[in-house]
Amino acid sequence: MRMYDIILKKRDGGELSDEEIGFFVEGYTNGAIPDYQASALCMAIFFRGMTERETVRLTECMARSGDTLDLSAFGDLSVDKHSTGGVGDKTTLIVAPTVASLGCYVMKMSGRGLGHTGGTVDKLESISGYRTSLSEEEFIEQSKHIGIAVIGQTGNLTPADKKLYALRDVTATVDSIPLITASIMSKKLAAGSKNIVLDVKYGSGAFMKTPEDAEKLAENMVRIGKSCGRRVTAVLTDMDVPLGKNVGNALEIKEAVDVLRGREKGDLYEVSVTLASHMVSLVKRITPGEARALVTDAIGSGKAFEKMKEWIGAQGGDVKALEDFEYLPSASVIYPVNAPCDGYVEGIDAQSVGRAAMLLGAGRASKEDTIDPAAGVVLLKKPGDPVKAGEPVAKLHTCDVRRIPAALDAIGEALRYGAEKPAERGLIYKVISDADL
Amino acid sequence: MRMYDIILKKRDGGELSDEEIGFFVEGYTNGAIPDYQASALCMAIFFRGMTERETVRLTECMARSGDTLDLSAFGDLSVDKHSTGGVGDKTTLIVAPTVASLGCYVMKMSGRGLGHTGGTVDKLESISGYRTSLSEEEFIEQSKHIGIAVIGQTGNLTPADKKLYALRDVTATVDSIPLITASIMSKKLAAGSKNIVLDVKYGSGAFMKTPEDAEKLAENMVRIGKSCGRRVTAVLTDMDVPLGKNVGNALEIKEAVDVLRGREKGDLYEVSVTLASHMVSLVKRITPGEARALVTDAIGSGKAFEKMKEWIGAQGGDVKALEDFEYLPSASVIYPVNAPCDGYVEGIDAQSVGRAAMLLGAGRASKEDTIDPAAGVVLLKKPGDPVKAGEPVAKLHTCDVRRIPAALDAIGEALRYGAEKPAERGLIYKVISDADL
Repeated sequence: MRMYDIILKKRDGGELSDEEIGFFVEGYTNGAIPDYQASALCMAIFFRGMTERETVRLTECMARSGDTLDLSAFGDLSVDKHSTGGVGDKTTLIVAPTVASLGCYVMKMSGRGLGHTGGTVDKLESISGYRTSLSEEEFIEQSKHIGIAVIGQTGNLTPADKKLYALRDVTATVDSIPLITASIMSKKLAAGSKNIVLDVKYGSGAFMKTPEDAEKLAENMVRIGKSCGRRVTAVLTDMDVPLGKNVGNALEIKEAVDVLRGREKGDLYEVSVTLASHMVSLVKRITPGEARALVTDAIGSGKAFEKMKEWIGAQGGDVKALEDFEYLPSASVIYPVNAPCDGYVEGIDAQSVGRAAMLLGAGRASKEDTIDPAAGVVLLKKPGDPVKAGEPVAKLHTCDVRRIPAALDAIGEALRYGAEKPAERGLIYKVISDADL
Repeated sequence: MRMYDIILKKRDGGELSDEEIGFFVEGYTNGAIPDYQASALCMAIFFRGMTERETVRLTECMARSGDTLDLSAFGDLSVDKHSTGGVGDKTTLIVAPTVASLGCYVMKMSGRGLGHTGGTVDKLESISGYRTSLSEEEFIEQSKHIGIAVIGQTGNLTPADKKLYALRDVTATVDSIPLITASIMSKKLAAGSKNIVLDVKYGSGAFMKTPEDAEKLAENMVRIGKSCGRRVTAVLTDMDVPLGKNVGNALEIKEAVDVLRGREKGDLYEVSVTLASHMVSLVKRITPGEARALVTDAIGSGKAFEKMKEWIGAQGGDVKALEDFEYLPSASVIYPVNAPCDGYVEGIDAQSVGRAAMLLGAGRASKEDTIDPAAGVVLLKKPGDPVKAGEPVAKLHTCDVRRIPAALDAIGEALRYGAEKPAERGLIYKVISDADL
């Protein structure tokens, strides 16, 4: 078998066999197939697509390219959540303890942030003492004991995806639905959970710009997950505007706590409750409506917040920080951004807010950058809110005043005002369950 | 400027700017742009194509990526011929001395053979003493003196094309019309001749399988050559069947001599006269019909053959070998291939004949192989000829009897017989002149 023939076949619109896909994934992972052939194949896939069978096979081969986590001890009770990435997306911090408090097992490996989106692991590290790496044994034991563990990506998980993603990133072959599907779903398969809820975001701050594109991706991921023996639900959520009010690591921990303590409703609460409901629905095999009642009760009763403290404490984090935000990192400079005119906030471009937060020190422009856990943006207004000229609309948090000017430019690009109250944007576009397909 | 953005733009159907194409060619040639980005761009070009402006720019940048030959001393009298490659194609050996005998200057750099097609340089090396490499000064001096010089590719000519072609060859991105055009025409531009005749072949033994595809390529090359300030004519010729009777290095020298001595007419004579006529027509600015009369007279009078001897002698070759074939390498094994039945030769697949010749030792399967100058195939019959069962149809020539069985299989695949005389196939499909476009 030759890689040349595989590229040619795909280029000319053929369907690759299981053997051909296996040959490619194995050869590329072990270095026998060079980058220049892999990038040519990715570009051919961009143009020609992949059938469901091909995508399933690619996903499975990539999942098996390295270590896989054995969660069989948890039977059908393990559940994972994946977000395609957004600005201000701290739902993992909320839904993980909430569903764990309801008897589900949440064993998450989360990523670090790069560019305008943040990573859950970076957020958790703003809590003093929190250990983001546990041994596999510790990870499983903690999960058995308290139903939840959240760590950074560890070991040699899906090396094929790591290598291929890095290549796609520099060859303009990222935005191909079968390749995105295989990348995400291979990691989910390797991470072992039986049930998976996908938060597929659309809008300016998301990878998919329109709900229609997000729907195609979501359907494909649900279908592939099902074919690989997992139960999968995708929730399509809006990411035109940042989720919630806070963007930045310690700032997002605070907002997540506020939601779990019932102090904060709004879009973040609603998206979190929806995601948690679908997770509980999958695990307990009850309707999403029945699950929602359990979820809102877990939050309302404080049970979810208790689970959060138990979890953070088990991983060495300072639980006091959750009760009293004085124990979290805070910014030395807080700079207000004021409305230039009377009217309404018409829109807040998520990507620009993410960029502002990154420029303030909350994120990394390149992998080597260190982050300032206190830095970020707090939105005091959201689209549809009335404003008066000179009234603060957002606040910039940083420990380095030199970062303010560039961040001000970015936040200036993010905020749009209008004379009329804008039409309300839906928060959740659609839910796609594997039973629908 | 970033290569990533260039790939993305082309992938999404955009037209690359002159600066972007220049950035790519320069960066790829000097190693700043890695192979994996270049192959992704080539695949995007395969799918999206290139406009005329983009192709002209790519051609010019590639032509200027290394040394270029200055033929200004020859004014408008220099002429080059390029064949897209075929089996049994020894026309350069015939047309070069013919047009040189008529006052045109033919300064050719020719390639070596790889795979099923032979290279002019390999053929010339079967003449004892022939020097395929001359210094630039010797090359120009000899041309001034006798009007002709034919050498191997020398110096650092079009390094961008060398590198890119090697990459395209292993990433299934060879058959893209703009990329083929830029590859061929950049070499022709760098080689300096003012007038260029392109022999664009179609059929089983050619790169382009149909006359329609060959026509698209030919039109594109003529248009690009014209835009780059050259006078160009393309002749579309059939390569379903090998050209002439002999395939193999010394065997092809013999056949070329036979044509120049008036001992051989048929398809090879006809294609050679047509190509030579268009070369003379371009240089002398006379009609192809007027040029044809000069060409047939040059051959008929022996003037063209005298020029061949002058040329071969000037480059150190043994001129006796042209007068008496005993001085050319000859095979120790000559094995007949007989007709299995009465009837007609219906077809002779050029690619399979080329493969048989390669298997007999006439060509290289990989760059490192050495060749046997005496090896090859002689076709005793051509399509349309009647045959009797047991009558020899072809002869296999080699110096290594162990090579016979595999070559027999290949020649067996090449020869097709039928009860009826097949319809005659046209030899020349079309001529495209830059005045037509």
